Amino acid sequence: MKKDKIPSADVISREPFPASNKVYVKGELHDIKVAMREISLTDTKHHMTGKSEPNAAVTVYDTSGPYTDPNVVIDVRKGLEKLRESWIVDRNDTERLSGISSSYGQERLNDAALDHLRFAHLEQPLKAIAGNNVTQLHYAKKGIITPEMEYIAIRENQRIDEVADSMGQHKGNSFGANTPVGKITPEFVRSEVASGRAVIPSNINHPEIEPMIIGRNFLVKINANIGNSAVTSSIEEEVEKAVWACRWGADTIMDLSTGKNIHETREWIIRNSPVPIGTVPIYQALEKVNGKAEDLTWELFRDTLIEQAEQGVDYFTIHAGVLLRYVPMTAKRVTGIVSRGGSIMAKWCLAHHKENFLYTHFEDICEIMKAYDVSFSLGDGLRPGSLADANDAAQFAELETLGELTKIAWKHDVQTIIEGPGHVPMHMIKENMDKQLKECHEAPFYTLGPLTTDIAPGYDHITSGIGAAMIGWFGTAMLCYVTPKEHLGLPNKKDVKDGVITYKIAAHAADLAKGHPGAQYRDNALSKARFEFRWEDQFNLALDPDTAKEFHDETLPADGAKVAHFCSMCGPNFCSMKITQEVRDFAEKEGLNTDEALQAGMEEKAKEFSDKGKELYL
Amino acid sequence: MKKDKIPSADVISREPFPASNKVYVKGELHDIKVAMREISLTDTKHHMTGKSEPNAAVTVYDTSGPYTDPNVVIDVRKGLEKLRESWIVDRNDTERLSGISSSYGQERLNDAALDHLRFAHLEQPLKAIAGNNVTQLHYAKKGIITPEMEYIAIRENQRIDEVADSMGQHKGNSFGANTPVGKITPEFVRSEVASGRAVIPSNINHPEIEPMIIGRNFLVKINANIGNSAVTSSIEEEVEKAVWACRWGADTIMDLSTGKNIHETREWIIRNSPVPIGTVPIYQALEKVNGKAEDLTWELFRDTLIEQAEQGVDYFTIHAGVLLRYVPMTAKRVTGIVSRGGSIMAKWCLAHHKENFLYTHFEDICEIMKAYDVSFSLGDGLRPGSLADANDAAQFAELETLGELTKIAWKHDVQTIIEGPGHVPMHMIKENMDKQLKECHEAPFYTLGPLTTDIAPGYDHITSGIGAAMIGWFGTAMLCYVTPKEHLGLPNKKDVKDGVITYKIAAHAADLAKGHPGAQYRDNALSKARFEFRWEDQFNLALDPDTAKEFHDETLPADGAKVAHFCSMCGPNFCSMKITQEVRDFAEKEGLNTDEALQAGMEEKAKEFSDKGKELYL
Repeated sequence: MKKDKIPSADVISREPFPASNKVYVKGELHDIKVAMREISLTDTKHHMTGKSEPNAAVTVYDTSGPYTDPNVVIDVRKGLEKLRESWIVDRNDTERLSGISSSYGQERLNDAALDHLRFAHLEQPLKAIAGNNVTQLHYAKKGIITPEMEYIAIRENQRIDEVADSMGQHKGNSFGANTPVGKITPEFVRSEVASGRAVIPSNINHPEIEPMIIGRNFLVKINANIGNSAVTSSIEEEVEKAVWACRWGADTIMDLSTGKNIHETREWIIRNSPVPIGTVPIYQALEKVNGKAEDLTWELFRDTLIEQAEQGVDYFTIHAGVLLRYVPMTAKRVTGIVSRGGSIMAKWCLAHHKENFLYTHFEDICEIMKAYDVSFSLGDGLRPGSLADANDAAQFAELETLGELTKIAWKHDVQTIIEGPGHVPMHMIKENMDKQLKECHEAPFYTLGPLTTDIAPGYDHITSGIGAAMIGWFGTAMLCYVTPKEHLGLPNKKDVKDGVITYKIAAHAADLAKGHPGAQYRDNALSKARFEFRWEDQFNLALDPDTAKEFHDETLPADGAKVAHFCSMCGPNFCSMKITQEVRDFAEKEGLNTDEALQAGMEEKAKEFSDKGKELYL
Repeated sequence: MKKDKIPSADVISREPFPASNKVYVKGELHDIKVAMREISLTDTKHHMTGKSEPNAAVTVYDTSGPYTDPNVVIDVRKGLEKLRESWIVDRNDTERLSGISSSYGQERLNDAALDHLRFAHLEQPLKAIAGNNVTQLHYAKKGIITPEMEYIAIRENQRIDEVADSMGQHKGNSFGANTPVGKITPEFVRSEVASGRAVIPSNINHPEIEPMIIGRNFLVKINANIGNSAVTSSIEEEVEKAVWACRWGADTIMDLSTGKNIHETREWIIRNSPVPIGTVPIYQALEKVNGKAEDLTWELFRDTLIEQAEQGVDYFTIHAGVLLRYVPMTAKRVTGIVSRGGSIMAKWCLAHHKENFLYTHFEDICEIMKAYDVSFSLGDGLRPGSLADANDAAQFAELETLGELTKIAWKHDVQTIIEGPGHVPMHMIKENMDKQLKECHEAPFYTLGPLTTDIAPGYDHITSGIGAAMIGWFGTAMLCYVTPKEHLGLPNKKDVKDGVITYKIAAHAADLAKGHPGAQYRDNALSKARFEFRWEDQFNLALDPDTAKEFHDETLPADGAKVAHFCSMCGPNFCSMKITQEVRDFAEKEGLNTDEALQAGMEEKAKEFSDKGKELYL
């Protein structure tokens, strides 16, 4: 068991990405600056003519926050700049409390033994003024375009409109989802939130976030789970894991800590996180009753929700769909109940012979959520833990209940997403998506993978990356990552990165297949760089420039190889791209003797061949 | 540049898999013994009753060959036992030549400077007696069930029929491919080969192989590419890479060597390979003309085919579909021609203003193939090298030509598979499969990935694993692996393993989705072990037991943790599986007070609840 330690500056990853600048795009409706990453490219050098041609910089969606901007001063002990603070205050519907409302929170605050671990610059929490509802859904329904909504519209566009058709774009969408065509507008963001099809997790006590949206008509998002456990890891490590996960592309972070000091760990993470933070409050509640599920009470849980809402948690996983009558439906499963939250609630229900208190108190929970704008992530406590249990009666019964709860949450204007499985073979994935859209009235789906086979522990980022890409294409709005350590151990930093990169791949593959405007722009730029042997550009455009460069250096470490017109796979005398270049040069130099081509019997294509002859491969 | 070195015994991986025995299942029609791997499992211990229950051993398809059987003596300098030799000789349609037929082969043999690198126990090659056709397709059409066919039938069944329904099996197939139902018979194998829907790559000069089949009504297969290049790696490394790739699940190996001594390297690989070997003969032909594509001639290529056929290569990639008239269709592509074979032939066509000699001499090639039973792998020389070029006119024009050539190959009873892309976004994958089945008359499809995005160099095993799983589900018979080094460098042993495991995942996910009989058996056994905290069984059933165990040990190294009823993710006091077990125990001990459940208002499910109450979680 490691000793807890607060974060020091030197463990936090701050290196900017290679050849990248942080750029800030101004809003039109609001006084906002939207952060993006701009990757500069080198010129294309024409082999034959010696001429150079510039390649436009590529702007990409950036989740890394201010950490990758060398011009921003960051002190982890103070936390990030409060980007949204004035936006929230300007709405005039919140008040700063004179102290924290939860009794557990007060207890921790007054415990001198925790002073050395406590975040130093605690502020008093904000809360909606009585009678007000401060959710983005509430504003959206009222027709208000918040700064958050405009920020998101600009962010999602990635400045693709500015570079327009300078390269071949997407070839069409065979799937037919109702993805937007062209530029995303602030009004489109508002309307998607108002309809419940998208959520903006944004607790008023987490003003540090750069607003993001979860909805299937936007870029597919990914979540990374972190968190210490009773067995291992410290506060410092978890904060760096959060920063690290954002660096590689995590759109949200779930803090699933179950060890000691999770109140303090969470504070550190939230204050230093540029992305929304989710939690599963029942984990902490269970800690408070020493792991005895049957000792849980609504009052204790309620205090936990308030404690976390006032710290700034942006979404809560709530397992309110695990109903007493569904528990027996899991009895014959190969893997019973594998969701921690699900098993806790099942045990509570059985122990008390009563209905799940999260279900019976659901409207009470809504009252808390709307006073801080915490979003629901309705947990799938009965999700399958193996292919053998996929799409079974227990899973789908719970899903129907989650749909019922969605309606209740929406009645209170509380933003809601729905969690999904888990372990599902490929041919059974689409049924999950179709059923979720139908039963849950198009509330965003948020799935864990799914894993498409159970035979590869140690590689479950891959078994699940396959399922994640597919379900993302089918319409899932956010993919919860799985690391290589799933089922085996706690992820370290390498595992977090492997999980995040794998899920960025899955999400991007889904964006491409859905035809998100401009998704293919980065692929095309990288492919062009690859074909032109612009090695550094190829590395810099990659999701993980470090690994790309390292792998290249492993075989050809010399700096000269970075500009070489060959690579180690084939060597200098034998390379298909080099040969293609020679084909192009040859065609350019010689022209093409179309007469001989004709004689060889190529009549049908000869016209085209002849017409294009002189321009071929120019 | 490394110095070539012949393999020594100590670099060849021979460790048996943990808790595994090599078992040999006897044939009924022929005197054959089919190798499989049997994984022993420990007993299930019932928490409450203290009783134990045995778990049946799981038999799995095994590509590792005799290397993992500690009872087999292997001397890499002598090569593997010639399992098929008597089967071939007994057919009385071959003769052993008095010397090798290719002039290049003779040249290498007579070069004393190569003596130290030459395989020591060279045999004279076998060839069909004039007027005979020795292909498995020829036999199949004549109604003959060869020992190879019976071997394959037994091998594909994995003894699943013996364990039958001891566990829940597959839940049905939503895709509707014409996968077989129940046990695969030798006659089914014969009929699939006869129809051209499946091939058995099995050169009469490669008697060392354990027969395998490539066809979409069988288990999805994977290929691993190895081979030295002018830049790096030695004979010894390549032989170990081949053995290593088979260990982790490669069903075939392609030797893509382009460096020096590739004739000798190939001999070492074939003699020590238990799986079929494929090559791209044009690579070696190009070496013979010092990399000048325009200097290639039919005569030189023909000599290369014979040279390799007499060494025992089981399938040749032949880029006969790259026609002169198709080359201009690639002019406007983002990445031109990326296939090495494709670019060589394109350059040759343009340089000579003539049609591809592989196309004009296609029937001459067939004559060679049928004299040794070398299978065609018709190369996709115009495959897309980026998403931007996917499914374009050049690619599909070539595919149509491959369909035309398939008919010609079949006229000669030459076995044929068709190569496919490459780089294809998810929504454009199925079109590839559908078009291939139609244009190529259901000849097996053999695809490279496809990669579903281009933005992740360093992770292209994953970008392509997604596409591979999907196209495997749609009907691709064999998946050519992609390693993490793709586009960046030559794969080392770690990369080979990562590529193979990723593709085993993709192939198995496809088998599950297609509903291959028994595919889910191993998943279910592993899931049950996982749920019962039988850690060692979970590791041993994994595709990669070493990594699973290593990852577990990283967080909880103590041996006690291997039998612990918890894991590091949650710690000893907080674990969903432990809680589920407690739920089960609780239900068992207390029974369920169904009256109270009724009072709580659960009328609709109460009957079911009550009926099942006493058995719940037993």
